[in-house]
Amino acid sequence: MIPDAVRALVAAGPLAHLTTLNSDGSPQVTVVWVGIEDDAFVTAHMGEWRKVKNVRRDPRVALSFLGTRNNPRGLREYVVAYGEAHITEGGAPELLQRLARIYMGPDAEFPPRNVRHVPGYITRIRPLRFGGVGPWAES
Amino acid sequence: MIPDAVRALVAAGPLAHLTTLNSDGSPQVTVVWVGIEDDAFVTAHMGEWRKVKNVRRDPRVALSFLGTRNNPRGLREYVVAYGEAHITEGGAPELLQRLARIYMGPDAEFPPRNVRHVPGYITRIRPLRFGGVGPWAES
Repeated sequence: MIPDAVRALVAAGPLAHLTTLNSDGSPQVTVVWVGIEDDAFVTAHMGEWRKVKNVRRDPRVALSFLGTRNNPRGLREYVVAYGEAHITEGGAPELLQRLARIYMGPDAEFPPRNVRHVPGYITRIRPLRFGGVGPWAES
Repeated sequence: MIPDAVRALVAAGPLAHLTTLNSDGSPQVTVVWVGIEDDAFVTAHMGEWRKVKNVRRDPRVALSFLGTRNNPRGLREYVVAYGEAHITEGGAPELLQRLARIYMGPDAEFPPRNVRHVPGYITRIRPLRFGGVGPWAES
């Protein structure tokens, strides 16, 4: 389950750091737009980028983004969602268009029309544990 | 070597996502204050947290943070530094105090006086490769 405080942050469009694992076990990080569908984080990719291949090989990922408040010690709140990801094909332009209105602006059109026929990939991340600094963080 | 454009971003105090590897190979992420000393990224820890233990076991880390500009497609620039980290003991309060003036404000005092005697740990990250979106990113 995704806590309400985390849902509220995602609704505002935080740029999220997605960590996947390369074949040699080293970390790979990209910054992504993120949404929530049911009880999963979702992010879209127009191509079969390395992160897509990584998730297919090893589903263990981390998704991290900053919150908006400071804790009582003056440190910025942030969310780390640890979970298992899986890839589905298709639907990337539609999800990106939905997120573009949040991340770029209410009138944004993204991806460009000339690539909207590409099905792309969606990564769905089922969170297993939350870390970071904030009321969602497990000790 | 750390590109000048990356040095300029670090000088402004970006909250950085530090990814280390747990003993089972899964990723661990925390948000840290980061500085540069010589050709390494440095971050300080008052305790022997899990990330410190992780780096001792496996030095492969990623450090990622947002830039300030958008690229021509309207996507936010960001830095991912992939590198090898190593831990040294001592000097954490001094480094944290230096960084606090950037991250909290010019008059900030951090860590609190009552823990300044704790030596703590410093993680030094020698970057091997830069990813992300921006002039520093290798294709």
